[in-house]
Amino acid sequence: MCRFIAYKGEEVTLNDIVISPTNSLIEQSKDAKKRKKPLNGDGFGLSWYPTHNDPFPARFVSIEPAWSNQNLQQIASKVRSQCFFAHVRDASVGMPVSQANCHPFNYQKYTFMHNGRLDQFAKFRRNLLNQLSNRAFDLVKGNTDSECIFALFLDTIEFADNLSTDDLTQALYRVIEKIIQIRREADANTNAFINLAVSDGTSMVATRFATDRESQPASLFYSQGKLAIAAGKDFSLNGNSAQNTVIISSEPLTSEPLTSDKSDWIKVARNHAVIVDARNQVVTQAIPIDYQT
Amino acid sequence: MCRFIAYKGEEVTLNDIVISPTNSLIEQSKDAKKRKKPLNGDGFGLSWYPTHNDPFPARFVSIEPAWSNQNLQQIASKVRSQCFFAHVRDASVGMPVSQANCHPFNYQKYTFMHNGRLDQFAKFRRNLLNQLSNRAFDLVKGNTDSECIFALFLDTIEFADNLSTDDLTQALYRVIEKIIQIRREADANTNAFINLAVSDGTSMVATRFATDRESQPASLFYSQGKLAIAAGKDFSLNGNSAQNTVIISSEPLTSEPLTSDKSDWIKVARNHAVIVDARNQVVTQAIPIDYQT
Amino acid sequence: MCRFIAYKGEEVTLNDIVISPTNSLIEQSKDAKKRKKPLNGDGFGLSWYPTHNDPFPARFVSIEPAWSNQNLQQIASKVRSQCFFAHVRDASVGMPVSQANCHPFNYQKYTFMHNGRLDQFAKFRRNLLNQLSNRAFDLVKGNTDSECIFALFLDTIEFADNLSTDDLTQALYRVIEKIIQIRREADANTNAFINLAVSDGTSMVATRFATDRESQPASLFYSQGKLAIAAGKDFSLNGNSAQNTVIISSEPLTSEPLTSDKSDWIKVARNHAVIVDARNQVVTQAIPIDYQT
Amino acid sequence: MCRFIAYKGEEVTLNDIVISPTNSLIEQSKDAKKRKKPLNGDGFGLSWYPTHNDPFPARFVSIEPAWSNQNLQQIASKVRSQCFFAHVRDASVGMPVSQANCHPFNYQKYTFMHNGRLDQFAKFRRNLLNQLSNRAFDLVKGNTDSECIFALFLDTIEFADNLSTDDLTQALYRVIEKIIQIRREADANTNAFINLAVSDGTSMVATRFATDRESQPASLFYSQGKLAIAAGKDFSLNGNSAQNTVIISSEPLTSEPLTSDKSDWIKVARNHAVIVDARNQVVTQAIPIDYQT
Repeated sequence: MCRFIAYKGEEVTLNDIVISPTNSLIEQSKDAKKRKKPLNGDGFGLSWYPTHNDPFPARFVSIEPAWSNQNLQQIASKVRSQCFFAHVRDASVGMPVSQANCHPFNYQKYTFMHNGRLDQFAKFRRNLLNQLSNRAFDLVKGNTDSECIFALFLDTIEFADNLSTDDLTQALYRVIEKIIQIRREADANTNAFINLAVSDGTSMVATRFATDRESQPASLFYSQGKLAIAAGKDFSLNGNSAQNTVIISSEPLTSEPLTSDKSDWIKVARNHAVIVDARNQVVTQAIPIDYQT
Repeated sequence: MCRFIAYKGEEVTLNDIVISPTNSLIEQSKDAKKRKKPLNGDGFGLSWYPTHNDPFPARFVSIEPAWSNQNLQQIASKVRSQCFFAHVRDASVGMPVSQANCHPFNYQKYTFMHNGRLDQFAKFRRNLLNQLSNRAFDLVKGNTDSECIFALFLDTIEFADNLSTDDLTQALYRVIEKIIQIRREADANTNAFINLAVSDGTSMVATRFATDRESQPASLFYSQGKLAIAAGKDFSLNGNSAQNTVIISSEPLTSEPLTSDKSDWIKVARNHAVIVDARNQVVTQAIPIDYQT
Repeated sequence: MCRFIAYKGEEVTLNDIVISPTNSLIEQSKDAKKRKKPLNGDGFGLSWYPTHNDPFPARFVSIEPAWSNQNLQQIASKVRSQCFFAHVRDASVGMPVSQANCHPFNYQKYTFMHNGRLDQFAKFRRNLLNQLSNRAFDLVKGNTDSECIFALFLDTIEFADNLSTDDLTQALYRVIEKIIQIRREADANTNAFINLAVSDGTSMVATRFATDRESQPASLFYSQGKLAIAAGKDFSLNGNSAQNTVIISSEPLTSEPLTSDKSDWIKVARNHAVIVDARNQVVTQAIPIDYQT
Repeated sequence: MCRFIAYKGEEVTLNDIVISPTNSLIEQSKDAKKRKKPLNGDGFGLSWYPTHNDPFPARFVSIEPAWSNQNLQQIASKVRSQCFFAHVRDASVGMPVSQANCHPFNYQKYTFMHNGRLDQFAKFRRNLLNQLSNRAFDLVKGNTDSECIFALFLDTIEFADNLSTDDLTQALYRVIEKIIQIRREADANTNAFINLAVSDGTSMVATRFATDRESQPASLFYSQGKLAIAAGKDFSLNGNSAQNTVIISSEPLTSEPLTSDKSDWIKVARNHAVIVDARNQVVTQAIPIDYQT
């Protein structure tokens, strides 16, 4: 159960979103507000699409905590992007802290991350791996459920590189269905938390999903509008559809209370997806999956 | 403001003290109970005196958090010692996380650590360094107030290697006095938290000290007695002066509530020292310093 | 193609073997003499059996080069053991440098390492993994051919923990046969370099093997006798069967030229094994495998 | 004695200069051609000026070798810049490998690096530090002679941020003179190798200097012209003063033999400087210092 940010919109210096806000991802790395365990200190990662003509994102990851990493401070304060993911990890028990286990995961134009946990992963990991194509299997370098889900995603889209926003969304739904099925076959009948985020640099989709009707998925919020940056402080977003910027985040990044009329942040409903198209327009949608495990 | 353990007594496998207890140092690295900020994730260190005939302690440090470090698990579960220090660090704001800044610090037969903070260190750091002998100055490799205090200690004992328990104790008191004086000269008149621990492998002394009468020093406890290890669980200590083991720790390591008659842990009073001699006998003593800054 | 040491005999401080000699493993990490590429800078590892009553070895690994790692210096200079392995890694092209990929590998009482390379590993990696039991499969955490070979070894011995020296030897031979077969099935018909070393703390076996008749396996040497340590200098071994110490090493560690009568080091012949029993007696043996690929 | 690159000219993706060439800095990190010891494996660093409107360079450093660092591969392949420094380190004996000791060093708009060694540094380090202003003293975080030289440079320019190319050049000469003087006062009369490079993002100056008439400074080359990139291969530079790009490098990066008429690389003469102005025009100049120590 980690914390993440997915950003798409106006070109911005990463630190204005990742570091400066009151409840930034750095702050959440040591003191997340919407988790029982506040600590996400098992490494971090950034993945950004360059501003120049290069469709493939960069990946910068470290096993050090985000809060003390000087390279992260430097890179976030100099790199600009119109689409990026950032993630701070809280490793599941027994799961190594290693660069291969850091999110986001990348392959060609795709970047992907997960906030959650597939309960009883050990029980069905080999079955899941066995269902992968050779191409997807060979991409798995680490030990996490999350990386396996990304491999499943790449197989689901058959490694295509020209997906529409709807293709991307449907693929994510198919991945969740496959996970449910593989878990069912292995009698892994406890809860799976499946908050995923994926982008190809053009569209961006995130899910908030739990397989167990009784429990809540990990928290997920989004915000949209015209971005206004105040250096070293909270940014703000307000509705201007012509220059829309969208931020999807495990927790609100800025300080205004959610209950305030002035809050920029909208809570994503359980088992819903947030879908951002090429023009940065946002739709939320109930995920059409019968999730009873 | 960090957390530490100082151990002297029966030869023991390190993990029985450092890792297995309910409120172990590993636990305190992510969730310290007696600090407002519970996190001590900015690296850690171990320093142990070998069981064979070698008077100089080993040092194992890392900038990774203690909770996820696999080498720490391995080393603590195999190394045995009759005297060792362990420390988890919470770096002061702006202070780099680096191996040179990890405690304990070692020189020849001495091992040393600090839990606290010299407020306004930047204001008097250069003056402090200027007062060091060349020999002590050249030993300072990192950026912390703590390492400077150790250099001051080595100068105070004139690098002697044959101190009695009382010599060691008096040296620690002199170091605190010097710190107070250097701070006074620099008009650094806010609080300094000076919980120190030092050992030469034979004696062991720790202080709980704050310069400000109004505020409490960082927490400090000790426990003594015959050690009984229950593998993978809380050890216990009970009074047996013939086979005494002493543990000094920022927080009680075992679960029994302090208010319980069965608790092994005794709180060290403010501005007192805990002094452990070569036969592992313990004395506590008010630190005879006029600490008004 | 890495460099390694396997030690069994008189209890010794690790640095007398690993660090002090003229051509120590540290020296070989930056300037190996018996390789075309002299560099083994992709991490290192130590695995040692404790001197106290604990049959399971410790593992200390790092992705930093051995030559600059201060923890290695500290640990090697304080830890004593009667049986240990040490390894400096030169990662194959495209293979990540990570702790999971560092040798030695450990499981319960076994420690294992590999100096070599299974050519075209990508071609048969999945087949190899598919042949593992669930128990062995779940132990594979990294990406190397070497770790897969260790998993194959554990399956070959069916995770038994009471092997005779001969059992251990035969198991290693079976592993080499399995590798040859798996490679043959995948049409991986170029060379495989299979210098392995395994111990259970009681016996120790190493192989020097290449599948291709035309090429030489990686270098391998051994030395035996009564150990004489000169602090900070080359140790020496001379024939005293009552107090035998055995060192198996990719390269001679001490400076006497091999051609000298005074050299302690014996070259292991191609496709031979060096077998060390519980009393530290050494036998070399041609590996009875028809190795034509 | 390390290896470095200083680049100024056409905006370029870093990896085209740092990674792709035949004798790239990555290649030099494991196998430098123009040093007796070919290894520069003690960490690395990048410092680049952003392409957007931000005068302060970014710094990305690591204690891992450059050849295996995946973050370096990622960042170099995505970051573009018109001015950057890159450095691979070979630590002097006894000098820690740490992030604080990695080059380049940065302060505000300045980036700085050193390839060389001030012999007998321990003898005059404290004197050098004592001559620094408080402001410069407080910037020194690590243990190297190189970082002290940068502090000396900042004092020399009195932390000014509006230097002409000639100001920058003269400041570097003054720094060398100060070093010579401080060394003389300490009777440090063996050789000092002082290849420095500094930039403020507008101008760029590098020196090739040795204090001893008998010995050669570390190698230094430069190349200039219109840059032509062939993806994944050697770039080329040819004389076109209108679109000049300049690369200063410890070794030629591309494969054409220096003796060839087609070679792009010009050797910098001993005790000369290479001076690059705001329009990327290059002058070489004998350093007007009486360097007899």
